[in-house]
Amino acid sequence: MNGLDLRVVRSTLGEWADDLDDQDALDRYAAAAWSVIAEPGDGVAGAIVRALGRVEALQMITQDGLLSGIGDARTLARAQERWRPRIDGGAIAAALQTARTNGIHLLVPGDPLWPSAVDDLGVHSPLALWVRGDPARLGTDRPAVAIVGARAATAYGEHVAIELGAGLVARGIAVVSGGAYGIDGAAHRAVLRAGGVTMALLAGGADRPYPAGHAGMLADIAATGVVISEVPCGTAPTRWRFLQRNRLIAALSAATVVVEAGWRSGSLNTAGHASALGRPLGAVPGPVTSAASAGCHRLLREYDAVCVTGVDDVADLIGALPADPSSERATADATSVDTDSRRVRDALSSRTPRSVTEIARHTGLAEADVTGCLGMLELEGRARRTLNGWLRGG
Amino acid sequence: MNGLDLRVVRSTLGEWADDLDDQDALDRYAAAAWSVIAEPGDGVAGAIVRALGRVEALQMITQDGLLSGIGDARTLARAQERWRPRIDGGAIAAALQTARTNGIHLLVPGDPLWPSAVDDLGVHSPLALWVRGDPARLGTDRPAVAIVGARAATAYGEHVAIELGAGLVARGIAVVSGGAYGIDGAAHRAVLRAGGVTMALLAGGADRPYPAGHAGMLADIAATGVVISEVPCGTAPTRWRFLQRNRLIAALSAATVVVEAGWRSGSLNTAGHASALGRPLGAVPGPVTSAASAGCHRLLREYDAVCVTGVDDVADLIGALPADPSSERATADATSVDTDSRRVRDALSSRTPRSVTEIARHTGLAEADVTGCLGMLELEGRARRTLNGWLRGG
Repeated sequence: MNGLDLRVVRSTLGEWADDLDDQDALDRYAAAAWSVIAEPGDGVAGAIVRALGRVEALQMITQDGLLSGIGDARTLARAQERWRPRIDGGAIAAALQTARTNGIHLLVPGDPLWPSAVDDLGVHSPLALWVRGDPARLGTDRPAVAIVGARAATAYGEHVAIELGAGLVARGIAVVSGGAYGIDGAAHRAVLRAGGVTMALLAGGADRPYPAGHAGMLADIAATGVVISEVPCGTAPTRWRFLQRNRLIAALSAATVVVEAGWRSGSLNTAGHASALGRPLGAVPGPVTSAASAGCHRLLREYDAVCVTGVDDVADLIGALPADPSSERATADATSVDTDSRRVRDALSSRTPRSVTEIARHTGLAEADVTGCLGMLELEGRARRTLNGWLRGG
Repeated sequence: MNGLDLRVVRSTLGEWADDLDDQDALDRYAAAAWSVIAEPGDGVAGAIVRALGRVEALQMITQDGLLSGIGDARTLARAQERWRPRIDGGAIAAALQTARTNGIHLLVPGDPLWPSAVDDLGVHSPLALWVRGDPARLGTDRPAVAIVGARAATAYGEHVAIELGAGLVARGIAVVSGGAYGIDGAAHRAVLRAGGVTMALLAGGADRPYPAGHAGMLADIAATGVVISEVPCGTAPTRWRFLQRNRLIAALSAATVVVEAGWRSGSLNTAGHASALGRPLGAVPGPVTSAASAGCHRLLREYDAVCVTGVDDVADLIGALPADPSSERATADATSVDTDSRRVRDALSSRTPRSVTEIARHTGLAEADVTGCLGMLELEGRARRTLNGWLRGG
C-alpha cells in the first residue's frame, strides 16, 4: 500500500462510507488503519497522530518517507521499523470486513459517542475502539466503576463481586470489567441479572470471545451493554495487550475496585493504572489467611487504596449518593452515637477548644466518661483533639 | 483522717515501710492514697499532684482547706467534693493490706521500674500502678505491642490473635492486652504457650480476676508476666474504668493492633487512645461479610489504621526487624520482581526522569510492556511517575 487512494479507502470501508464525505471517509479509514498498525499504548503513534492528525500521519508513514521535526529522529525511525510490516491494506480491509460482518462498530476520537475519559491517557490513549453492542451504552452521562479481580477467585470473592455488581445497578452505575473467569465474570453476570449496563474490555479482537468459555456471557453483554477492544477484529490477545487492556478498564471508570487479587495478580496492574490516572482506588479486604486477598491487602497497606466493604463505600469513592437513606452505613452511623456521646458532642464548640474538665462540667459526666466518649467521637471524626483542648469535628 | 500522721502512715504501709526513710514512706503512702481517692484519668488530681507533689497535694485535700492558685476555683471545688467521700484512711489501709496479702506490688511514678511510657498521658497518666507479678517484667528495654479485640471473636479472629501473639514472642516483643474473653484471651494464651511475656491490664483491682472465668489464665500471666491495674485492690470494674483501662493499654504499648472488633467495639476506644497518643495503629482485615471485622474495616477506612496481615506487618509498625530474613513478606517481595520489571527498574535513574519510550529503548522491551512493568514497580514503590517521566523509587 502506498499513499491513500480515495477509491480504495471508500471500497474498503464499504457501506460504512455511504453517508460520509471524502474527508470523513479518509478520517475513519485512518483511525482503523492506526489500530491495525500500532500496538495498544504506542506512545510514538499517539504523539505523531496528535501532532499531524491521523490522516496526514498515516500518509507520511505509508509514503515510507522518514518522519522528522516531531520528536527524536531515532525514536521515530525505530517506530517506523515497528510499523512497516503492519502497513498492509489487506489487513486493514480484513479488519473492517470482519467488523461489518459481526456488527462491530468503529468508534474514533471525535465521534459524539467517543468516551472522552480515555483521552486522559494522553499519547497512550487509544487511536480507535471496536465496539460490539450499541456504542450509545458507553453513555458518558452515566458513571461507570471497574470491578476487577483474580481469575482464581474464592466463593467469598465471587459473592462480594455479585453484591457490588447488583448494588451498583441499583444506583444506576455501569460496571466495567475484563470478561475473565472469577471476579470479572461474577461482576458482569450480576449486572446482567439485575438488568444493568456492563462493559467488557477485551485484550484481543471484539469478534473473538475470550475466554472461549465466556462466549455466551459476552454475547449477553453485547446485547445489553458493550464488549470493547482497541485492537482490530481477528487480533489475538497477548501479555502486553492484557496489560494495555487494563489501562483502558481504569481509564473508562470513575473508580476501580479490586475484589480479590493474589500477591502478583494482574488486577494490581489495573489498580496501578487507575492510581496513575488519579482515579479513586478501592480494595475489598478478606481473611489474611486467604492468598486470594493478599493483593487487596497489599493495595490497602502499600498503595493507600480505600477499604471497600460494600456498595455504599463504592458510591463514596465516586461521590455518588447512597441509593436509599436507610442504607446500612447510614443506620450504623446514626446508632453509633450513644446518648453520652451526644451530650459530649453537644458540649463541643467548633471554634473554641474545651478541656475534658470543662466538657465534664458542661455535661455533668465523669471526666473518665468524657474521655471515653471523646475517643469514640474522635474515631468517628466528630471531635478533634488540639493542643488547647477538644473541638467539634465533622 | 486529718493531715498525715507519720506513725499512722508507717503502720498502714506495714513491712513495706521497713526500709524506707520517712519521706519515702509518706511518698508511697500518698501515691496509694491518690489511687484510692481519684478515679482513673482524673485530670484535676493529675494537675495538682504535678503542681504540688503527691504528698503536699494529699496534705492539702485532707486538711479540707480549699485548694487555690492552681487552676479554676470551681473546678477544684467540684473535684474536692468528688474526693471528700473517698478520703478514708480505712479504705487506704485496706487496699494496702489486700495488696500485701496477695503479693501485689505498688509502683509509683519515679520508681526505677515505673513504665515512663504511661506518662505520655500527661495529667491523665496514672498516679500509681498495682502490679501482680514481678514488676521487673514491665522492662522498658523490651518493646511491647497491644493485641486487642472483641470478646465476641470468631475462630478466624482467635486464630490470627494466636499467630500474632506467638510471632511477637519470637521477636522478643511483649504483648499487652485486656485479659478479656475472645481476642484478648487468645493473644495472652498464645504468649504463655510460647514462653513470652504478656501484660494484662484490668479495669478492677489486680486482686480481682476479671472475667472470673479467666482467673486461671490471669494467675498464669502473673507467674510469667504481669497483671496490672491503676485502681486499688478490692475495686470493682465499671464502664468508665474499662474506658480508662483502655488508655493504659494504648499508652504501655509501642503500637496497638485490633484483630477483630464489631462496629461499636470497645477496642475502637483503645484504638482512639493509641492514635491520640501518636502511637502506630494497626487493624487486621477480615471478610466484609463478618460483623466481627466491621470495626477493623472502619479503622482502615476512617481512621487511617495500617492493614496488618501478619506479624511482619506488626514488626513494621514499631520499626522492628523481622525475626528471620526468610520471612514470608521478604520472600514475597523478592519474587514479586520478575525479569522484565528488573530490566525496567535498572533502566530508571533516581535523578533524571525517563519517558516510557526512552526506557523501552534502553531495555529493548515493547513500550506496552514497559508501561505494564512501570505499573507494577510503581505499585511496589520502586518507580515514581513525575510530570517529566519516570524516576527510580524506593
